[in-house]
Formats: sequence, C-alpha cells, structure tokens
Amino acid sequence: MIGKFISIEGIEGAGKSTQIQFIKTYLERFNQTVVVTREPGGTPLAEEIRELLLKPREERMSDDTELLLMFAARAQHINQVILPALSEGKWVVCDRFVDATFAYQGAGRGIHEERIAALSEWTLAGLKTDLTLLFDLPVDVGQQRVNQRLLQKDRFEQEKTDFFEKIRHCYLERAAAEPERIQIIDAEKSITAIEQQVSNILDKLLKKV
Amino acid sequence: MIGKFISIEGIEGAGKSTQIQFIKTYLERFNQTVVVTREPGGTPLAEEIRELLLKPREERMSDDTELLLMFAARAQHINQVILPALSEGKWVVCDRFVDATFAYQGAGRGIHEERIAALSEWTLAGLKTDLTLLFDLPVDVGQQRVNQRLLQKDRFEQEKTDFFEKIRHCYLERAAAEPERIQIIDAEKSITAIEQQVSNILDKLLKKV
Ligand SMILES: Nc1ncnc2c1ncn2[C@@H]1O[C@H](COP(=O)(O)OP(=O)(O)OP(=O)(O)O)[C@@H](O)[C@H]1O
Ligand SMILES: Nc1ncnc2c1ncn2[C@@H]1O[C@H](COP(=O)(O)OP(=O)(O)OP(=O)(O)O)[C@@H](O)[C@H]1O
Ligand SMILES: [Mg+2]
Ligand SMILES: [Mg+2]
Repeated sequence: MIGKFISIEGIEGAGKSTQIQFIKTYLERFNQTVVVTREPGGTPLAEEIRELLLKPREERMSDDTELLLMFAARAQHINQVILPALSEGKWVVCDRFVDATFAYQGAGRGIHEERIAALSEWTLAGLKTDLTLLFDLPVDVGQQRVNQRLLQKDRFEQEKTDFFEKIRHCYLERAAAEPERIQIIDAEKSITAIEQQVSNILDKLLKKV
Repeated sequence: MIGKFISIEGIEGAGKSTQIQFIKTYLERFNQTVVVTREPGGTPLAEEIRELLLKPREERMSDDTELLLMFAARAQHINQVILPALSEGKWVVCDRFVDATFAYQGAGRGIHEERIAALSEWTLAGLKTDLTLLFDLPVDVGQQRVNQRLLQKDRFEQEKTDFFEKIRHCYLERAAAEPERIQIIDAEKSITAIEQQVSNILDKLLKKV
C-alpha cells in the first residue's frame, strides 16, 4: 500500500504552516500515519541547503544557483524522506513542493519553464502530489500577516510586492491547468472556515484510499 | 580584450595545487593579471556549497544532489568571478572545472553524460576553457601522495581505488576527444620536469594572445 502525497502551496503569510498541523491531526483521526515535512529542507543536509537559500547575504545569488540549490535539496528530500515514507504506506504532507519552484524561480525570477520542467522530470522521476492545497489570498494581506512576525525577513520575504504578484498569478494558472490535483483555498477566510474546507477536500481523498 | 581561461584537472594527489602557483607566477612574468580560483568554490557562497559537498556525513548524499550542488556552485562562480575577470582581460586559472563533473559525477557516480551535458550547456552558456591541463598518473601513486597528508579525508578522498580508476579513464577519454583543448601532463615526473612541460604549453597560449 502506497501513502498519499499532499503539498501545501501559497505565498508568504497565506497560512500554510498554520493549517499543516490541523491536516496532520485530521488524517490521524482516520488512522493514517502522517509525516509532516517541508521544502526546501526535510533532511539535515537539505536543511543546510535551505539555510544557504534563505539567509540574506551581500553576495548576490544568481538565479541559476537558486534554482539548482532548490533541486539539490529536493533530490535529497525525495530520496531520503518522501519516497521511503510513501512506500511504507505513510501519508506525506509537505509545506511547499515543486509547484513553488515554478512559481518562485519560474514566474518570480524569470527562469524558463522548460528548464524547470526538465529538472523536475529528472528529480521527481514520475512522483506527483495526489493533492496540492493552494492557499490563495491578496499579496498585501499575506504581507500584513508576515509583517507582524518579529523575525528578520529571509531572502525571499525581502522581495517586493510585484514579485509576489507574479507568484500568486503563476500558482492560480497552475491550479487552472490541473484543477483535480490543485485545489484552491480562499486563505482570507477565518481559520475555522478554512479547516472546514480543507477537511471536506481531505474526506474525498480518504475515501479514494 | 578577453582573458584566457585555464583549468587544471586530475585525480587526487596529481599535483594540481602544487603547479597552480607556478602557473600564476609564470604568466605574471608575461605581464598578465592572473586570478587563481577553484571549484567547487571560488566565491563565499560557492565555498559554503563546497563545504556541503566535501564534509563526510552520516546522511548519504544522493548522486543527483551532488551533481546539482556542483552546478549550483559553478553557476555562482561563473557569474561572480570567472566571467567578470575574463571580460576585464584577466587570465583565470581554475583548480578543477566542468571536466571534473563529467569525470567524478559522470564516470565515478554513474550519472548519464547527457544530463551533465545539459546542465553544462545551461550553466556555461558557451564558456569553454582555452586550455585544460590534465595531470595524469596511476591512481595508487596519487593515493600515496594524498595519504601523506595528515588532514581528515573528505567525502571524495574516502572513495575506493575503483572510483578513481573510472575517473582517470574518463579524463583520458576526454583528452583524446579534444586533444587541442586538453593537454596531458605526465604527473609522475618530477616537479621541475612538469614545470618545464607546463611552461612550454603556456608559451604557445601566450603567443596566441
Ligand atoms: N486564516 C487566517 N486568518 C488570519 N490570520 C491567519 C490565518 N491563517 C494564518 N494566520 C496568521 O498569519 C500568519 C502567517 O501564517 P503562516 O505562518 O501559517 O503562513 P505561511 O503560509 O506558513 O507563511 P510562510 O510562507 O512565510 O511560511 C500567522 O501569524 C498566522 O497566525
Ligand atoms: N611531481 C610531483 N612529484 C612528487 N610529489 C608531488 C609532485 N607534485 C606534487 N607532489 C606532492 O603530492 C602531494 C599532492 O599534491 P597536490 O596537493 O598538489 O595534489 P592535488 O592534485 O592538488 O590533489 P587534490 O586533488 O587532493 O587537491 C603533495 O604533498 C605534493 O607536494
Ligand atoms: Mg510557513
Ligand atoms: Mg589540490
């Protein structure tokens, strides 16, 4: 029996990390073993790569370097964590996955989609999410939520509104192209309303198991 | 005026680092400005990626991750160091470059050559070395030289003889395919004899300037 693979996507402040714990608890009520993980990251080495990616630094990181580091971390994460868990029948819930690369490095940085698609084909080798929840909300609402955090902003969070508009747009386009796999959540709603919508979507996936 | 780009290749202990200072000094005698650098590395960020690549760790690094980290570091190095220096007319002498990836990740790890070629095309975007010096010697001779070092062995140095045999073989094949660009140095000879051969090769390149 192979587990289900769920990713959570959306711009900064959309509420991804907030909902991921709810999703885990909800699935566990249905006796699923759930591995919660994130990208970039998810293994000790991949978390070190995450550090390189997020840390603001004087040296400008080239767009190619950013893209290649993302896939380096992803290759490690898939091999060490995602595939082993799925093959043991566990569910994997991942805070961001490959759709984020198309959105951030593709639409955001302007790297050609075909290049990302090629890296994706190599690295994922057929792996696809069974479900991707896209937490969608206006960029300024997400920014306001993030601004309330007291942490120093990471390299991505330091980007301008325009960057996140492109990313939001790309996410919505991807959802339109794959409406079965990518389900849009109205992330402006209350946390309880979102939990309700998320649990309805999960119910359908649980019935398919 | 565009500078010349030289890379130094060969297995562990071949004498690359030993000769690179001689090369710099020799070229400076002919009034060239010489930037000595290395891969993986060459910028603060790329050196951090080098650390990730070389440090032995419990977590097994997947071959894809190794390949992608190599090119992530290379993209940064090319953009930040190599291209700017060449365009200012400086000569760049680099301890290992893309031939090492074909040898180590390709022949050594078994990654398909086409994949490395595709990453190479994207990342190098036409950049080629004007000269690559291949320091060739039997694997056991190189190993003996390295074993005299007191440092802890890095992740590559910990590999077995068989791994380095494949790499040596691949390097020699590449030299046979591009005899103009890749010049073989008999690295078993004395340091002085090698300096003589290297300076003869450099003389030809200097005359072409
Ligand atoms: N539906 C919601 N309504 C109002 N506030 C919310 C909602 N969901 C989350 N928040 C709050 O918004 C902030 C950002 O939420 P969260 O950290 O979950 O977002 P995120 O999508 O994980 O962001 P990042 O991409 O930066 O990790 C938090 O302070 C959280 O409490
Ligand atoms: N021609 C030579 N004959 C004998 N010993 C040599 C020769 N060239 C270098 N050595 C010695 O061999 C050792 C390895 O040389 P060096 O560090 O230059 O190799 P390297 O190719 O840079 O190795 P690595 O790939 O591990 O960086 C050093 O101790 C050096 O002094
Ligand atoms: Mg989060
Ligand atoms: Mg050396």
